Amino acid sequence: MTDQKQEKTLHQTNIKLLLDALKEENMQKFRDEFLELHPYDQASFFQDLDEESRTLIYHYLSPEEMAGLFENLEIEEEEYQEVLAEMNPAYAADMLSNMYADDAVDVLNELDKDQVASYLTIMDDKAADEIKELLHYEEYTAGSIMTTEFIAISANQTVRSAMHILRNEAPRAETIYYVYVIDEQKTLVGVISLRDLIISSDDTMLSEIMQDRVVSISVAEDQEEAARKMRDYNLLALPVVDFQGHLLGIITVDDIIDVMEEEASDDYSKLAGISDLDSIDRSPLSAAKKRLPWLIILLFLGTFTASLIGRFEDTLDKVAILAVFIPLIAGMAGNTGTQALAVAVRGIATGDLEKESKLKLVLREAGTGIITGSTCGILSALVVYIWQGDIYLGILVGMSILSSLFVATMAGTLVPLLMHRLKIDPAVASGPFITTINDIISILIYFGMATLFMSYLS
Amino acid sequence: MTDQKQEKTLHQTNIKLLLDALKEENMQKFRDEFLELHPYDQASFFQDLDEESRTLIYHYLSPEEMAGLFENLEIEEEEYQEVLAEMNPAYAADMLSNMYADDAVDVLNELDKDQVASYLTIMDDKAADEIKELLHYEEYTAGSIMTTEFIAISANQTVRSAMHILRNEAPRAETIYYVYVIDEQKTLVGVISLRDLIISSDDTMLSEIMQDRVVSISVAEDQEEAARKMRDYNLLALPVVDFQGHLLGIITVDDIIDVMEEEASDDYSKLAGISDLDSIDRSPLSAAKKRLPWLIILLFLGTFTASLIGRFEDTLDKVAILAVFIPLIAGMAGNTGTQALAVAVRGIATGDLEKESKLKLVLREAGTGIITGSTCGILSALVVYIWQGDIYLGILVGMSILSSLFVATMAGTLVPLLMHRLKIDPAVASGPFITTINDIISILIYFGMATLFMSYLS
Repeated sequence: MTDQKQEKTLHQTNIKLLLDALKEENMQKFRDEFLELHPYDQASFFQDLDEESRTLIYHYLSPEEMAGLFENLEIEEEEYQEVLAEMNPAYAADMLSNMYADDAVDVLNELDKDQVASYLTIMDDKAADEIKELLHYEEYTAGSIMTTEFIAISANQTVRSAMHILRNEAPRAETIYYVYVIDEQKTLVGVISLRDLIISSDDTMLSEIMQDRVVSISVAEDQEEAARKMRDYNLLALPVVDFQGHLLGIITVDDIIDVMEEEASDDYSKLAGISDLDSIDRSPLSAAKKRLPWLIILLFLGTFTASLIGRFEDTLDKVAILAVFIPLIAGMAGNTGTQALAVAVRGIATGDLEKESKLKLVLREAGTGIITGSTCGILSALVVYIWQGDIYLGILVGMSILSSLFVATMAGTLVPLLMHRLKIDPAVASGPFITTINDIISILIYFGMATLFMSYLS
Repeated sequence: MTDQKQEKTLHQTNIKLLLDALKEENMQKFRDEFLELHPYDQASFFQDLDEESRTLIYHYLSPEEMAGLFENLEIEEEEYQEVLAEMNPAYAADMLSNMYADDAVDVLNELDKDQVASYLTIMDDKAADEIKELLHYEEYTAGSIMTTEFIAISANQTVRSAMHILRNEAPRAETIYYVYVIDEQKTLVGVISLRDLIISSDDTMLSEIMQDRVVSISVAEDQEEAARKMRDYNLLALPVVDFQGHLLGIITVDDIIDVMEEEASDDYSKLAGISDLDSIDRSPLSAAKKRLPWLIILLFLGTFTASLIGRFEDTLDKVAILAVFIPLIAGMAGNTGTQALAVAVRGIATGDLEKESKLKLVLREAGTGIITGSTCGILSALVVYIWQGDIYLGILVGMSILSSLFVATMAGTLVPLLMHRLKIDPAVASGPFITTINDIISILIYFGMATLFMSYLS
């Protein structure tokens, strides 16, 4: 039996036992089994229950116990409001104050302002202050994903006293694997890993073992930049500072993994032309709602393309064979454009583009467009000539593909660069969007050339 | 001055100083500055140098020092061979044996088999054995990204003795933040975090504080599954076991971050129709080489589409206006198909689909296709009627869009599911591929209906 199967079976038995305990309203049996589970599994179990069973659980678990479960909940934004409304407000506030401050803020961000205010009022003051501090930061910044529960100490002490502080703060801190060193003004001056503390002798001064070149991030920077730094420098936590270098908080690696997952999903869904990737358990109606905005925009852009072709109806009337190659040319332009777009968008997203000059990318893509365009142009000219036995038609299709591929590659590169310059997320220039633009361009090129070639076409 | 700018300036000064030291062939000056840098920055500096400067560095740094740099190198696969060839073989072997075993394996995987054998022969035996053990595992499995440098101890001892072992092994282990507990047969029976060790009193027995429900992964499982478990359970390291539960190695969170980055990039580039996302510093020729295979396949698929339309040349000859709506209908079908594809591919990739039944997804998508199809169908029928004043043309276009959108949604869902069933990576069914299939389907539907409607069309 593989490990995987063991776990699944274990899981099934757990679920059955827990459901039985809930049905029997046997609190002790439920707690015995439930508190053994990892908070992630607790959350998975919880989110599949009905309201009645959930209400039982609020009575069976303390707010502290519920906090761990809640940190691991993966439900839709609007469902947080629902679930919190089921709880007694004092219980909910108590639970929120027991969560890590950054996770509590994530939940509160889904609520209305007056609901947030009311929870903060009945919460204990210390937790409320921590949360208020974090609520300020704009979404997608380093500040919005940091936590204030870190360990910071001054440099003029020994490893022994640092370990003492660490033991005391361990239950509250989100990570104890890095200790940050600050001066009297709370400026970040160094970092010591727990690994270094453990292998140093007790009487060593911290100033001797601390690393004073600290990789940190400014509070207003993009969360993707934080992810990049943690990935490049293999960090488990990244300190967040203000413009004067004061230590404000830390970002832990588990939050960065969520950010990476989110951003990847986001870029991917935009390339596919969905505003937001619908999870597969949505209803058809809600899935359709997510997809229709794009489809309707594209319908109108497509109608515009159609009206462009309509202006060449006379040409089409005379040479009906021209229509045959419309999807080929438009399709090829769309595909090249999407390829170029993907390279540019990922280059911007991963920060690689910052290191290179943008001009270099544009020139590179121009070269790429000429090579792919010539290759596909010559190939298609040959195919059309062999198939239709008409050399002029072959040349027309080949030249249209050559020019369309070149222009489409440039559009796929320049549009995201321009959007980045204008501070718009370049991923918004999604695949379908650039495809439609390139449809229009390529059809103009094709029929423009066809009109010129008119007298040669049979 | 923001943190960001400070760092950049610091970096620039460093680079200048280091380049000067290399030019002056001043080893001491170089070492003083270079060894202060984070290995990631050392690697960034190193990979921009020419061969002459790199050769100097091999003389300035010990194999141990070079190992840290090499672990952080981000160069093309073929370049590893080049760089290693520049080194004295004994130096290279020594460096490889000083790298973390999993990173050394990554490098060796880029070399020819006889080169690998020769490095392993001159390497010290212990390192060679560790590396040989890891070289077995297939790419993309948990085994291929694990390291054997972990800390494992038996349960029947105190926290004090565990801390003693930990201090001794800290310099070699890749992480010391988890200590794994094994029995006499090396079966994994528990895990203790360093956090728990630190807050427990010295005389506590490990069996009292260890967590005996250990989340682990089987060695042959997919690396994506490892990423999923570490993300869900917020782990810094994940133990890897064989089918009998023996502890073989661990996967650390930094490797998982690389896996996630890789897989996201991979899914994204396939959706865009690029076999492998080219980095932006490639030459136009090498970029074109990466893109042309797809473009040429699509060119031939497109020619097939064209030949399909060609069979309706008579219809087109009679009613030229039909050609006007080809890109609209094909484009809409392509877009919906890509949307459905993205949802299915991500559902499979993130493992969400395993939890739901596949039939449920198919039914959901059928519903979604009917809703989006009817909405866009009715809308386009109205637009065409108003624009062209021809009710039959409106109905023809509307009905074609309705049916195409439904069929395209189903194709976008069924193709990746089928590929997953056949154990083919569903991401291969990229956007352009599904788009071209849907082009063909939608054109058949459109002209099929047009032929039926023929007598009503003016």
